[in-house]
Amino acid sequence: MQETKLTQKAMLDLVMDVFDQQLPFNRFLGLQIERTNFDKATIRLNWQDNLMGNPYQKILHGGVTAAILDTVGGLMAMLYVAKDLNDLTADEFRQRIARIGTIDMRVDYLRPGKGEEFTATAEMIRKGNKVAVCRMELHNEKGTHIAFGTATYML
Amino acid sequence: MQETKLTQKAMLDLVMDVFDQQLPFNRFLGLQIERTNFDKATIRLNWQDNLMGNPYQKILHGGVTAAILDTVGGLMAMLYVAKDLNDLTADEFRQRIARIGTIDMRVDYLRPGKGEEFTATAEMIRKGNKVAVCRMELHNEKGTHIAFGTATYML
Amino acid sequence: MQETKLTQKAMLDLVMDVFDQQLPFNRFLGLQIERTNFDKATIRLNWQDNLMGNPYQKILHGGVTAAILDTVGGLMAMLYVAKDLNDLTADEFRQRIARIGTIDMRVDYLRPGKGEEFTATAEMIRKGNKVAVCRMELHNEKGTHIAFGTATYML
Amino acid sequence: MQETKLTQKAMLDLVMDVFDQQLPFNRFLGLQIERTNFDKATIRLNWQDNLMGNPYQKILHGGVTAAILDTVGGLMAMLYVAKDLNDLTADEFRQRIARIGTIDMRVDYLRPGKGEEFTATAEMIRKGNKVAVCRMELHNEKGTHIAFGTATYML
Repeated sequence: MQETKLTQKAMLDLVMDVFDQQLPFNRFLGLQIERTNFDKATIRLNWQDNLMGNPYQKILHGGVTAAILDTVGGLMAMLYVAKDLNDLTADEFRQRIARIGTIDMRVDYLRPGKGEEFTATAEMIRKGNKVAVCRMELHNEKGTHIAFGTATYML
Repeated sequence: MQETKLTQKAMLDLVMDVFDQQLPFNRFLGLQIERTNFDKATIRLNWQDNLMGNPYQKILHGGVTAAILDTVGGLMAMLYVAKDLNDLTADEFRQRIARIGTIDMRVDYLRPGKGEEFTATAEMIRKGNKVAVCRMELHNEKGTHIAFGTATYML
Repeated sequence: MQETKLTQKAMLDLVMDVFDQQLPFNRFLGLQIERTNFDKATIRLNWQDNLMGNPYQKILHGGVTAAILDTVGGLMAMLYVAKDLNDLTADEFRQRIARIGTIDMRVDYLRPGKGEEFTATAEMIRKGNKVAVCRMELHNEKGTHIAFGTATYML
Repeated sequence: MQETKLTQKAMLDLVMDVFDQQLPFNRFLGLQIERTNFDKATIRLNWQDNLMGNPYQKILHGGVTAAILDTVGGLMAMLYVAKDLNDLTADEFRQRIARIGTIDMRVDYLRPGKGEEFTATAEMIRKGNKVAVCRMELHNEKGTHIAFGTATYML
């Protein structure tokens, strides 16, 4: 029934479906999207030994940190775009959000990535029609602030 | 025989051993270090569907791009530190290079990450005693330039 | 005679006129645009004591370095946009290029900014319709490489 | 009386003296340090036409924004270093803080730099022995958030 127009609720479900089902790397890393709304993006990641980046300490590889920060920022950008879409079919919607892409990102590694469960969040600091900028944060289950990210997305 | 002092050749082997055997995430992604020297770091990655980041195009997830760029820059930093180490045992050497860490990184995504084999290279643009800065590039097998990176490492 | 359509040569003159006459901060710093073409942007700056940023060494303030890098990248973005403009009057042209703006910039300070004459250059690494990314470099009169910049511009 | 050891109060005065009297570019731009303490850095800048960066709107040049953000972050780094210095003469203290330098900085331009009075603030997000990372913000007198900065400093 692709011709049915989407409700806002359906779009939110669709964003999460795209994230979970259509982006294989998210599943490969074990990224899990938290039930979210249009103004807030949150992603969780459980520790697994495959993600280790330092042989002497059990800490996340810097590439994992970069990946989760880029992903949560990209999710925030998708939600921002989705919010104002109307009268699209599911297919049109999927194609629209597939056009969103990262232009550039800065990651600041603040503390070693130790922990059992990691939470990444994003907020938008520049909301444009063509380009948006997000700030992202990564914390562990104890609330330790592990990294900051700042990324610019093409909408 | 950990008390034997390392030759330069042995240190180079050890850097590659740490990279391949002791950083699980490198293996998880499929990153392969190319035979290298102290002045040049090169890493290869073959396409696998797990690394896909866009459901409508077969392209690398931005997080993979960030991870390989951080990794090749970190490898360059390890080689730079290793070059001037003398009179260390293998264990001391491993502990010394385990202290190297990324402080911050910028990634510029230039073109979609399409390809079958990807090559990441790094060069040092600031060589300090405590801190080094690297520039990194990612190309595919056709020579298409996919991304730039710039990262600052604590030595 | 604002209704006259501009030639490419006239547009190039106009970009330089905007730069020199209409951006007071460029004059305030002493930035001088070099005779340029659509593919290359070069700016010069002569040392003056007002630009000093360190009381113990005669070196450029980091803010001056950031300013000249942003300026040469912005000039490159203007030239890139100008190249494809046709059938505009001088006023329309000025208004079009006034819309160009920096979204984000990274500066890497490589060496102390010592010298008598500084040259900043820019090249475009991502050429889009809406957004462009430039890399910039700052050298002194001896060819010493002082700083790198990377900036994303809204076109 | 350079041999007299400095009190914490005297060091704070000295940081401000260095900032105001010994960094000519700060005066040239009109940057004014606000009475501060060791945990917070605030700088003010009043509009002047020399700082204009856009001929069609009365807004700050992006280079000014970058300069004030780098400056307030550098001030925060000086205060952080000063806090733990003891038993230095004024000269030793000046020489110690003259060694602090910016390694890299990212600026995110969020909104046009309109206003009559601008305030830049900094906070430290990574506090190391050799390297520190600061986040900076620029607001105008109405509280409009104009720009973010993130910078890494060699201590």
